[in-house]
Amino acid sequence: MNIHELDTPAVLIDIDTLGRNLSGMANYCRTHNLTLRPHTKTHKIPQVARLQLQYGAPGITVAKLSEAEVMADAGINDILIVYPLWGEKKWMRLAELAKRVRISVAMDSLQVATGISRVAKAAGVEVGIRLEFDTGLQRCGLSANEESIVIAKKIIALPNLRWEGISLYPGHIMGNRKIREQDIPLENAKLDKLYALFDSAGIPYPLVSGGNTPAAFQSHQFHGVTEIRPGTYIFNDRNTVDAESAAYSDCAVTVIATVVSTSVPGKAVIDAGSKTLSADTLLSGERKYFGYIQDRPELILHDLSEEHGHLIVPGDSHIEVGDQLRVIPNHVCPCINLHDRVFVVSGEKVVDRWDVAARGKVT
Amino acid sequence: MNIHELDTPAVLIDIDTLGRNLSGMANYCRTHNLTLRPHTKTHKIPQVARLQLQYGAPGITVAKLSEAEVMADAGINDILIVYPLWGEKKWMRLAELAKRVRISVAMDSLQVATGISRVAKAAGVEVGIRLEFDTGLQRCGLSANEESIVIAKKIIALPNLRWEGISLYPGHIMGNRKIREQDIPLENAKLDKLYALFDSAGIPYPLVSGGNTPAAFQSHQFHGVTEIRPGTYIFNDRNTVDAESAAYSDCAVTVIATVVSTSVPGKAVIDAGSKTLSADTLLSGERKYFGYIQDRPELILHDLSEEHGHLIVPGDSHIEVGDQLRVIPNHVCPCINLHDRVFVVSGEKVVDRWDVAARGKVT
Repeated sequence: MNIHELDTPAVLIDIDTLGRNLSGMANYCRTHNLTLRPHTKTHKIPQVARLQLQYGAPGITVAKLSEAEVMADAGINDILIVYPLWGEKKWMRLAELAKRVRISVAMDSLQVATGISRVAKAAGVEVGIRLEFDTGLQRCGLSANEESIVIAKKIIALPNLRWEGISLYPGHIMGNRKIREQDIPLENAKLDKLYALFDSAGIPYPLVSGGNTPAAFQSHQFHGVTEIRPGTYIFNDRNTVDAESAAYSDCAVTVIATVVSTSVPGKAVIDAGSKTLSADTLLSGERKYFGYIQDRPELILHDLSEEHGHLIVPGDSHIEVGDQLRVIPNHVCPCINLHDRVFVVSGEKVVDRWDVAARGKVT
Repeated sequence: MNIHELDTPAVLIDIDTLGRNLSGMANYCRTHNLTLRPHTKTHKIPQVARLQLQYGAPGITVAKLSEAEVMADAGINDILIVYPLWGEKKWMRLAELAKRVRISVAMDSLQVATGISRVAKAAGVEVGIRLEFDTGLQRCGLSANEESIVIAKKIIALPNLRWEGISLYPGHIMGNRKIREQDIPLENAKLDKLYALFDSAGIPYPLVSGGNTPAAFQSHQFHGVTEIRPGTYIFNDRNTVDAESAAYSDCAVTVIATVVSTSVPGKAVIDAGSKTLSADTLLSGERKYFGYIQDRPELILHDLSEEHGHLIVPGDSHIEVGDQLRVIPNHVCPCINLHDRVFVVSGEKVVDRWDVAARGKVT
């Protein structure tokens, strides 16, 4: 089947671009002796996770327990939940999961660690733990100070927890951009301060995990980092292009859409709005518009309603009802999460269809 | 079950508030002799659509053909698709649908009308049509001029189409706000101009359909409007409160979330981010923040990551890991569309669970 025979809108994954993205990141990590534990929140597709394992990842990262359950059901047996889990129900589910796969959790509080330890002990299982430190994002994470080391000691001493090391988010950087060369020494000074605290307390830290997509290829420049968890690199999107971490030719996901109205002069409407592309604004650069029109860069996707993409059409550009366009979304992760299935394509040929099995798994 | 026993995050629908919203709009429409054809894109739940019919709506509105298919499967037999449908596949599906329910479509081009007419004729079915006019939103819709009347005549003459009348969007207004009293004469002048064009061409228009939620209760002040299609009124959200069309006590949907981290001073993180609430920014008013914390208005939901809601916690406010909060989303329609199911509650008691059967139906 050709992509133009699909009912629109539809999410297309270019398998050739995907392959290049897989091997590019795998090669980088191999060269620099970094463990790659890709974040699967970007795709939520077991088939893609398995490709990532085939390209050398020992395990995967997820954001939610319910995502971990889907991935475990799909046969993936080494999963990091990089999210603090709270509550008896979640701890029970975690313990069940730990019976069948190697599972680890990142956290930043004694409360969460105590709950997990207690339930893991009752279930007779072991859960890997990583302690999250805040290196600038100010979202989750302990501060690099003596008080946090006291908490770390208490957590590591809890039963049925397997101490794995330090987790940083999003990696060692702040925000969605590459690190300027001149800022790297400052970032390293922060990391060194953190390691010194662990060292003087005599606490070993087998791994230091960081890394998001924009700064992924800079990871080897940061002191002590042993593992990275990029997610978006697998597909890329307008954000990663705008952050100068990828080119449009590295974007594996497009949404194919049809022009449904040209009645308003100078405008056109496509059948892909915020319920198809997500309403995410651009994180860097010009922070405008809602996607990039592949091969038709003169068309500006300036606004989205729920089911309408609003295009500005310049005077010398011709567009008519029935034309099909391919949109590179601003942020591919929430875009994929809106869809039950995606179509795998090579050129214009549809070669497979994958279910987004972990879509909407919020708990 | 009590709401605090649910695994979070979870979407809660307060059935009592829902009932008040249902009866409020039904009473308004009855008083002013307006047909209410509620837009079900807000909830995508057949059980809610059936309640709307029980409260006097003769039929429903949907945005997509696939939503219409779900609603038809659920036994709803009068459906308006207020969206221009393009392509052989969609026209075939439309014709199939027209075999089993009363179906109407809004459109703004001869191309769309011709396609639907041809396929409907081949299938031996009739499809209702409404012609969309642009009264200010500049999204879809023909302009109010002689050229459009020529198109209207051609469309109405096509076989197997049932001419129903004029469609305006979003209603007779522009943007997501109420109309200022002083602007109503101007809006009416636009409408009168449109009707005069139809009148002088001798084209009757059995209905004039408009109306979104913010201006819904002003509909009787607009000339000629016979039907309104509000969607959000069924639940309300921070947008409708900000547009002064509802109070927070009229908001039927909250997302219950758990505090999972308080490590960063002055902040807290809840387990509901943009994949739970949607990244929609506020459409009016201050245009800031990503939801309203019910009963804890001092907590500011200032940012969202995919799975993290970032709260600013003022110095005199106490919050700890494990606390539960209820968030009124900025825009309830894309929020509901992220979830496979919702929980129906009365007070703190969970009384039912509904599947969001038309979630993710983009084609």
